[in-house]
Amino acid sequence: METKINLAEKLALLDAPYQPGIVGMLNDYKLVVVKTHGEFVWHKHDDTDDFFLVLSGHLTIQLRDRDVELDPGELFVVPRGVEHCPKGDHAEVLLIEPAGTPNTGDAGGERTAPERRI
Amino acid sequence: METKINLAEKLALLDAPYQPGIVGMLNDYKLVVVKTHGEFVWHKHDDTDDFFLVLSGHLTIQLRDRDVELDPGELFVVPRGVEHCPKGDHAEVLLIEPAGTPNTGDAGGERTAPERRI
Repeated sequence: METKINLAEKLALLDAPYQPGIVGMLNDYKLVVVKTHGEFVWHKHDDTDDFFLVLSGHLTIQLRDRDVELDPGELFVVPRGVEHCPKGDHAEVLLIEPAGTPNTGDAGGERTAPERRI
Repeated sequence: METKINLAEKLALLDAPYQPGIVGMLNDYKLVVVKTHGEFVWHKHDDTDDFFLVLSGHLTIQLRDRDVELDPGELFVVPRGVEHCPKGDHAEVLLIEPAGTPNTGDAGGERTAPERRI
């Protein structure tokens, strides 16, 4: 039976920045919470847009030509194919993207995280 | 050029309950804000799940066998084909569903709202 999802409770289960946890699904999209602090990696997703909603803290989404500054209650959708590099300041974030989308996009590397349900 | 979306600013543009406004897109999904107060209509969406995230106030999603009670920071995904009837108490809500999904689902009727960008 489907249950409601309390985002703060789910975020409390995460230990480290950039270790995403899947909290639910919307059709074939995964609903993901993640803590961000410090800079992630530059990457892009050629096949999908990328949804970020800041729940607490501050998130800078660095683009090649500008920075997008997000406070709680603000969201940004990175268009497909656009290079970006998140930089968090103790930010808690809701991400939505198709299941199977790697967190590091085309970049890969050691910061690629498994898809895990929390 | 894509810009960030401040959900509170967008919600301030809405005058009446159950008059949704599209604030952005994620691939072919619409990102919608809506104020809810009082009871909506019983309906279902046979072709898609339905995402509700409460931003302020309180939202009851009535299902045929139970009520789901949502406070700010809580979300619920109504599975496709499941009858539901939202009942808001001054709730501000982020909805996500495929573009073209009518707000009243299979029920239709006078509370069916046009898709409008705000």
